[in-house]
Amino acid sequence: MVVVFEIPRGTRDFLPDEMHKRRYVESVFRRVFESYGYREIQTPTFEQLELFTAKSGESVLDEIYEFKDKGDRHLALRPELTAPVMRMYVDQMQMEPKPLKLFYFGNCYRYDRPQKGRYREFLQAGCELIGSNKPEAIAELISLSMDMLHTIGLSHVELEVGNLKLLSMVFDELSLTKEQRQDLLPSIDKEEFDEVEDVLYQWELDSSKIVDFITLLKDRKSELLFELLSNQDQSVDEIKRLQQIIDLLKNHFSIESVKLNMGIVRGLDYYTGTVFEVKAPALGAEKQICGGGEYNLIGLFGGREMPTSGFALGFDRTLLAMDEEELSFPQQTLDYYIIPITDDMIPFAFEIASVLRRTHHYSCDVDLLRRGIGKALKYANSRHSLVAILIGPDELKKDVLTLRNMKTGEQKQVSIDEFKNNPDIM
Amino acid sequence: MVVVFEIPRGTRDFLPDEMHKRRYVESVFRRVFESYGYREIQTPTFEQLELFTAKSGESVLDEIYEFKDKGDRHLALRPELTAPVMRMYVDQMQMEPKPLKLFYFGNCYRYDRPQKGRYREFLQAGCELIGSNKPEAIAELISLSMDMLHTIGLSHVELEVGNLKLLSMVFDELSLTKEQRQDLLPSIDKEEFDEVEDVLYQWELDSSKIVDFITLLKDRKSELLFELLSNQDQSVDEIKRLQQIIDLLKNHFSIESVKLNMGIVRGLDYYTGTVFEVKAPALGAEKQICGGGEYNLIGLFGGREMPTSGFALGFDRTLLAMDEEELSFPQQTLDYYIIPITDDMIPFAFEIASVLRRTHHYSCDVDLLRRGIGKALKYANSRHSLVAILIGPDELKKDVLTLRNMKTGEQKQVSIDEFKNNPDIM
Repeated sequence: MVVVFEIPRGTRDFLPDEMHKRRYVESVFRRVFESYGYREIQTPTFEQLELFTAKSGESVLDEIYEFKDKGDRHLALRPELTAPVMRMYVDQMQMEPKPLKLFYFGNCYRYDRPQKGRYREFLQAGCELIGSNKPEAIAELISLSMDMLHTIGLSHVELEVGNLKLLSMVFDELSLTKEQRQDLLPSIDKEEFDEVEDVLYQWELDSSKIVDFITLLKDRKSELLFELLSNQDQSVDEIKRLQQIIDLLKNHFSIESVKLNMGIVRGLDYYTGTVFEVKAPALGAEKQICGGGEYNLIGLFGGREMPTSGFALGFDRTLLAMDEEELSFPQQTLDYYIIPITDDMIPFAFEIASVLRRTHHYSCDVDLLRRGIGKALKYANSRHSLVAILIGPDELKKDVLTLRNMKTGEQKQVSIDEFKNNPDIM
Repeated sequence: MVVVFEIPRGTRDFLPDEMHKRRYVESVFRRVFESYGYREIQTPTFEQLELFTAKSGESVLDEIYEFKDKGDRHLALRPELTAPVMRMYVDQMQMEPKPLKLFYFGNCYRYDRPQKGRYREFLQAGCELIGSNKPEAIAELISLSMDMLHTIGLSHVELEVGNLKLLSMVFDELSLTKEQRQDLLPSIDKEEFDEVEDVLYQWELDSSKIVDFITLLKDRKSELLFELLSNQDQSVDEIKRLQQIIDLLKNHFSIESVKLNMGIVRGLDYYTGTVFEVKAPALGAEKQICGGGEYNLIGLFGGREMPTSGFALGFDRTLLAMDEEELSFPQQTLDYYIIPITDDMIPFAFEIASVLRRTHHYSCDVDLLRRGIGKALKYANSRHSLVAILIGPDELKKDVLTLRNMKTGEQKQVSIDEFKNNPDIM
C-alpha cells in the first residue's frame, strides 16, 4: 500500500540550507553564552504535566501537548524551559557553588494556530542565573541577551526594562482588586493605553492617580514612579535598584537605548522584580524576540529559596529579524569534489579523499555515480564545490592531479605527493 | 503548595560536565559527517503514528510514545529517524541532484525498561545516502561510521558486514516458510547458533544444507555463500558486490578488520542488501553502537524508487565505550575570572569583561556576589578558571591590573591599556 505521509501541522522539516543557517545562529549564541561564563545543560523533552500547571496555572492546558504513557503517567511536551531547569536545579544542583550560570537550547511545543513566526514545535535559546540579584548581575544578564543579538548581526533591536514588583505597588496604590489586575493585564501588554484609561475611569478610581499611571505607561520616566509611590516606603529601594540597572546598562554595558516600560507584564505570578523584553519592530505583531527577568520558582518546587533570573530567545523570530535586515549567512561549501575519470581510478580517488578528510580536515566528496566529467562537474557546482579534482590514467602516469577552480574554470596540474602534504584550495 | 517534582522515568538531565562531553562528541561527529560531504537536516520530534507502523509493522506500538493532539490527530514521538527523513525526502527533496548525502542529530523515544545504555529518550546521530548503490558508495558509507568512532578516539570497535538479500536466498535454499524465517531471526540475531541448528533439524530440512548454513554463520567466509547458493544465478552478482565492498573497505579505506557476518538480521522487511554493525565488545550485552545498511522505504512512502542506505549511531553507547577505553575529554575551563575588590570597581570590572568577551572572544566571568578575595578565588577555582584578575583602588591608581595564574598562584601586574590590546592567558 502506498501512502504519502504528511508532516504534522505546525511543524517543519529543515532542509540543508535552512539547517545550516540555524546551526550558524546556534553556534554564535553558544559562543556568546560561554563568553559570559554560562555552561550548557539539557533537560528531557517531556516532563510531568503538573510541573507546568504548578508554574503557570491550569490555563496552560489549552495550549499544551499532553498524554499518558503506557505506565499511566501524565506527561507533557515542554511548552517552555524555565520550569524544567528549575526542577533540575532543585533535584540535583542545589549544592553547587553560586552563582550558577546555565544556558540551553531546546525545542518547545505549543498547540497554537500556526502563523508567521509561530509554530507548534519551536527552538528556544535561554539561560538562568541562580544565586545573585545584585544590580550588576541583572544588568549583565540583560546585556547578554543584547550581545547575542548584536553578535548575530542585528542592529534594529530595542531593549525595554520594567519591574513587576513596582507595578504591583502601583496597582496597590490604585486600590485594584486581584480580579481587576487580571482584567487589565492583556490591554497593558498590548499597549492599548486608552482602553486601560477608560476601564480605570469606569471603575471610579482616584482620577489623579489614573492620570499619573497612564502618563507613566506612556512617557516611561522613572521619576513618575517616585511620585506615584511616594506613600510606599518599600518602593524606594526597588526604584533605586531599577535606576541602577538602567544606568549600568547605558553607561557601562554600552547599550545605547534602554527604555523604561512599566507596561511589561509577563507572568505576574512568578516574576518578582525586574523584567525585560527585546523587540525587533520590523516584525510587526510578532516583534518580541526575547523576554525574561527575575522570577521565583525554586520555593514552589520544594527547594531552598535563592534569587533567580533568566531569559528565553526565540530562534524563529531571530531568523525572521535577520531576514528583515537582509543579513547574509556563511555559505555551505564543499572544499573538494573528486572525479575519477575511469572506473579503475575509483579506489585511488578515495585514498586522496581520505587524506583530505582525515589529515587536512577538508570537506570532500567523490563522484558516486561513475558519471561523465560534464555531469559530474555540474553536480559539483550544485554542491558549491570550490575545487574539482580530476583523476584519470593520464594524470596517474605523470603522478599528478588536475585541479579545477570551480569559480574561474582555471585548471592546473600538481604533483600527487606535494598535494597530499600541502593541499591548498586554489 | 510545595511539591518536589520528579524527572520522568528513563529520561535524564545533563548537567554542565556531562553536556560538555556530549557536545564535544557531537561536534566531532558533525565535523566528520561534513568532511564526507554530508549536509545536516532536521525533522519534527513527532510524526503521524502511521509513518512508523507502515515502516516497522504494528509491533512497534508496544514501545512507542503515542498520543492524540487536540485536533484528534494520532501522533507519535519518533522511535527512530530513517522513516521521518524518507518522509521528508518524498515530500520535498525528490528533485534535488543525486546523490543526496544527509545527516542528522535527533532525540528518539522508546517506552522500554530503562537499563545501562538504554533510556526512554536517547540521542542518535545518523545519515542517509540517497541515489547510489555502487559498491564504492556503500563502502564509503560504512567507512564513515568507522571514521566517526576512530576520530572520537575509540580503538576497540569491530566492523561486521552482512547481506540480507543473500540471507533471504539462503533461506529460500533451505526452503524455509515465511513463519519459519520469522521464528529463526531472534536466535540468529543473538548468535545462538546451536539453538538455530536444533530448530532446523527439528523442521527436518536437508541436513547437508543445515551444516553449510551453520558453518557460514560461524566461520564467516564468503566462499561458503557461493557453495550454498550455487543453484541461484541471481546470487552471483550480489556475492561479488559484497566481496567488492569488503575489499574496498580493507584495502582502500584502511579498515583493518572487516568480518563477514551473515547473521546480521536487522529489519528484514525494509533492508534490501548490504547491512553492517559496529560493536564495542567491552560493552557486553549492549555492545552494538552503530547499525545500518541498504534499505527501501521511498516506494512505500509514495516516492519514485531510488537506492538508499544509511546508519544510526547511539550517543549513549558511544559515551559508554569511551569511558571503557578511559578516553579523556577536553575540560571546560573559564579563561578569566574578574574580582572587583571594592564595590566602586564593579562598573570598571564589566568594562574589562566586555573587552575580553567581545574583542578577544575569551570566556570571562565577574564576581556577582561582592565577596571577599578569598571566597571569590575559591569560586574561580571551582569553575576551572585559568586566570583571576584583581581590580582594586591601588591597581586603578597605577593604571594596572593584577593577574593571578590559578594553577601556579603566581601573580603579576600589567598595564590596563596593554592588557586590553593584548590579553594573554598567563
